[in-house]
Amino acid sequence: MTHYILTLQCADRPGIVRSLAQGIVHANGNIIESAQFSDPITGQFCMRVRFECPDNSSKLVRKTIVSELMQYAPALNLRQAHVPRRALIMVSKHSHCLVDLLYRREIGDLAIDLPVIVSNHTDLGPIAERHGVPFFHIPVTPDTKPAAETRLRQLVSEYEIDAIVLARYMQVLSEPFCNDYFGHIINIHHSFLPGFKGANPYLRAYERGVKMIGATAHFVTVALDEGPIIEQDVVRVSHGKTPEELVALGRDVERVVLARAVNLYAEDRLQIAGARTVIFD
Amino acid sequence: MTHYILTLQCADRPGIVRSLAQGIVHANGNIIESAQFSDPITGQFCMRVRFECPDNSSKLVRKTIVSELMQYAPALNLRQAHVPRRALIMVSKHSHCLVDLLYRREIGDLAIDLPVIVSNHTDLGPIAERHGVPFFHIPVTPDTKPAAETRLRQLVSEYEIDAIVLARYMQVLSEPFCNDYFGHIINIHHSFLPGFKGANPYLRAYERGVKMIGATAHFVTVALDEGPIIEQDVVRVSHGKTPEELVALGRDVERVVLARAVNLYAEDRLQIAGARTVIFD
Amino acid sequence: MTHYILTLQCADRPGIVRSLAQGIVHANGNIIESAQFSDPITGQFCMRVRFECPDNSSKLVRKTIVSELMQYAPALNLRQAHVPRRALIMVSKHSHCLVDLLYRREIGDLAIDLPVIVSNHTDLGPIAERHGVPFFHIPVTPDTKPAAETRLRQLVSEYEIDAIVLARYMQVLSEPFCNDYFGHIINIHHSFLPGFKGANPYLRAYERGVKMIGATAHFVTVALDEGPIIEQDVVRVSHGKTPEELVALGRDVERVVLARAVNLYAEDRLQIAGARTVIFD
Amino acid sequence: MTHYILTLQCADRPGIVRSLAQGIVHANGNIIESAQFSDPITGQFCMRVRFECPDNSSKLVRKTIVSELMQYAPALNLRQAHVPRRALIMVSKHSHCLVDLLYRREIGDLAIDLPVIVSNHTDLGPIAERHGVPFFHIPVTPDTKPAAETRLRQLVSEYEIDAIVLARYMQVLSEPFCNDYFGHIINIHHSFLPGFKGANPYLRAYERGVKMIGATAHFVTVALDEGPIIEQDVVRVSHGKTPEELVALGRDVERVVLARAVNLYAEDRLQIAGARTVIFD
Repeated sequence: MTHYILTLQCADRPGIVRSLAQGIVHANGNIIESAQFSDPITGQFCMRVRFECPDNSSKLVRKTIVSELMQYAPALNLRQAHVPRRALIMVSKHSHCLVDLLYRREIGDLAIDLPVIVSNHTDLGPIAERHGVPFFHIPVTPDTKPAAETRLRQLVSEYEIDAIVLARYMQVLSEPFCNDYFGHIINIHHSFLPGFKGANPYLRAYERGVKMIGATAHFVTVALDEGPIIEQDVVRVSHGKTPEELVALGRDVERVVLARAVNLYAEDRLQIAGARTVIFD
Repeated sequence: MTHYILTLQCADRPGIVRSLAQGIVHANGNIIESAQFSDPITGQFCMRVRFECPDNSSKLVRKTIVSELMQYAPALNLRQAHVPRRALIMVSKHSHCLVDLLYRREIGDLAIDLPVIVSNHTDLGPIAERHGVPFFHIPVTPDTKPAAETRLRQLVSEYEIDAIVLARYMQVLSEPFCNDYFGHIINIHHSFLPGFKGANPYLRAYERGVKMIGATAHFVTVALDEGPIIEQDVVRVSHGKTPEELVALGRDVERVVLARAVNLYAEDRLQIAGARTVIFD
Repeated sequence: MTHYILTLQCADRPGIVRSLAQGIVHANGNIIESAQFSDPITGQFCMRVRFECPDNSSKLVRKTIVSELMQYAPALNLRQAHVPRRALIMVSKHSHCLVDLLYRREIGDLAIDLPVIVSNHTDLGPIAERHGVPFFHIPVTPDTKPAAETRLRQLVSEYEIDAIVLARYMQVLSEPFCNDYFGHIINIHHSFLPGFKGANPYLRAYERGVKMIGATAHFVTVALDEGPIIEQDVVRVSHGKTPEELVALGRDVERVVLARAVNLYAEDRLQIAGARTVIFD
Repeated sequence: MTHYILTLQCADRPGIVRSLAQGIVHANGNIIESAQFSDPITGQFCMRVRFECPDNSSKLVRKTIVSELMQYAPALNLRQAHVPRRALIMVSKHSHCLVDLLYRREIGDLAIDLPVIVSNHTDLGPIAERHGVPFFHIPVTPDTKPAAETRLRQLVSEYEIDAIVLARYMQVLSEPFCNDYFGHIINIHHSFLPGFKGANPYLRAYERGVKMIGATAHFVTVALDEGPIIEQDVVRVSHGKTPEELVALGRDVERVVLARAVNLYAEDRLQIAGARTVIFD
């Protein structure tokens, strides 16, 4: 039996679940997991189904199911569950998220392939090398940014990348790039958004005297730190912690939050509805 | 349109979701919320669906849906969402859970009716009175327990009670009572189970030097503090807290955990599968 | 033996602890609890000591201790621990924080007296009455605000109030009022500051799609929601929660965060150093 | 200026703080951080002070201070803050805690030296090698345990080890070993103690249906999983998580909890009072 993950989104109307269940039965499938959500803001119906099916041709299975759903004109994605998605990691100089993602992948905690790492610095090259992952140094200056992004697009294509994971990558991507890969660029921001958008969030958190600091994984959009939030978490801090200690405490939150977000993406548990995400966990 | 909540459990087999969706379509219903789980330990398929439907006869709607599901011999419950379930609260001398439940009910935070309060003491009678809820004092000694439970059963029947909520009720219910109302008695235990089962959990937590204390809402079974767990939460404590301060900190956890459990029950988001609960939140 | 709580703040220099310990020994006192902090931003030394002493004249004990500390020119406060501080509660129409504070005071969970309640509406009068606390209705319009604050100042004086607790009071206090009572007005804001300052934080949290909502207790200053933060907490939410459900979940956080802040104040565990608070917990 | 950390414990009596402050003044020291606790169960007075002092001879500084404290017969420890303590890590086959500790040490998040790793298996040797840390394979069978512990004692002595950190080491240490190094062996247990002591805690947590799983760092004593608790934390889980997923979620909690415990030890923020720990954080 082949396991499939199906996700769909369409304008909400009666009968979608029935039609989908019908389609899966026609494909001789058995539903293993199913979750749905009707978003009141956008009127979108979102659904994720995992099912098993004797047929191992995604194309045929898809055709059978789609024929039942045509009337709803859904954005529908179907894939075999055992083929992992592929993420390109981008980093600058901070290693904690990169090291964590690579370690999780090695022990089987991360359901996504990490075939390539890109950085605007060379510092983390040795970590990539140690884990046997190709590392590309693509420096970025205002002048070279277009060329850098062209190179990045080539790598995305060459390595058949699904998602770009900004694991503390300190450069802003261009508007066309953000738009072209919308829904497939995940960033970890080192604050509990919408607090402390932009630079130096830990220092600003320290100066503001907050009693908890946090991290936010979100989809990247043109508006900085404004994209749909995927996951957040916080940790309690006291007045006695220095800015450096906040940074250290924050690292633990950042790496866990980013790993959760990447895993949600890896398992198609993540949809965008308007300015928000729908999480099928 | 009438809103219905349907819950079902049966042995897991292919086609259940399709049949159910079919039944709801036959009843001219539209699914609003749906969640399911196949329990690997028991092999049970659990599902909860909320749907709207022009027909306001539960009996007819039920018949239409059941006719599609007969082959799965499900334990199926259907009810109209706007009719709240009804809970009888039992207390002894501690007021914090009772006061909290009554307050939540009054401001609309608790989706269950609280038509009657029972206690083995008279201390909390004035609180019941202040909120206009009938209060029955049913003292319990080893000798009078059978008679007390007979009286309790009468009240359950008379007030058409769905659930019995032990809001820090300090008596143990008899085996026949626990069995007869299995799945409908919710207790709040003042520890993070399975740690500190039984009496004086806060004192024992203090002496053991734990760094977090907790509370556990669970279904009551004959085995003390061993029933299926519904909800748990914890709060961080330090070595400097006295046992009395642990009790005070614990109160906040207890009342929140119990209220969440009662709300899960109230909205049929709670099923028992073997020794565990399935939560459709 | 009389228990004393001493707090002090002064420019940090060597020898303060020794001088203070010396002073307490001269007063025949024995230190029970002691905590200190040197704030790197302001250069202020902050300390809180609880000690017992056979002498029950605060004046004499103070004199003995101050004579040792004179050279540091400290802002020093000494009081007998068994005499509770006194708070005036201000509310508008939301009852959850008020009800919670009154309940905690009644069962001994709140170490502060609550002798008087003020509101710009009459809605919560019956709650005050039920608990036997004088309730003053002081309506506020742009025109009447000066008169309203004059009345408020009278009540503060008449009831010998130490702290003003804004338990979801929806009016902004004037600049002179904020300044005159700086360090003695505690507000609960229904967001995790600095996110969602100002009005309607839950709705904005919903629209932004955050994965956790929170509450913040802070000292009130002229700049809205910018005063030193005392305590914060959060609760996890999902995309499926409506704005109304966020409000309900937020209530639990608000009342706990405010109660903690009030208790910190009540026990002198709270100092202001620049834009931040120092918590001796 | 040299920074010193002083910890002391003695029977609680008036005047200790004064005498200590006096001693530090005599040593021309200035107190930077200070915390104390009088344990009501044992009657022990516990204190930790960090101070700076122009004299860089620990011996002389100690002598000056001790001369003031003699009458209290304290257990007193004084050391220079810039000299890190040294920990020997013991592991079996699970790598997550080891990898995390080594990474933290490398980026400066862990204030303790990790000069040597011991394992009863060879699996994690390559990780030690990659980080340049000597790795000793000391297999353990019932017959060879005495010899193995003799070898372990040699390494402790040879590498001038302060603490032994059991980073998921799956062997039980002998009674004499536990006793000789009491207060200096830290274990991470993969449950929220006292729940699920002993083997397979995640599987048992799964079967019991708990809604949160946790980890506990504690000092090792002869009674298995009964030693004084240093740090605990939990993570929320749902019915849908498999035992394997609980293991994966638990890893994140284990590594953070162990790192916190090791850092508390590294900075002398950790004292044992009876069956509990006192944490000066």
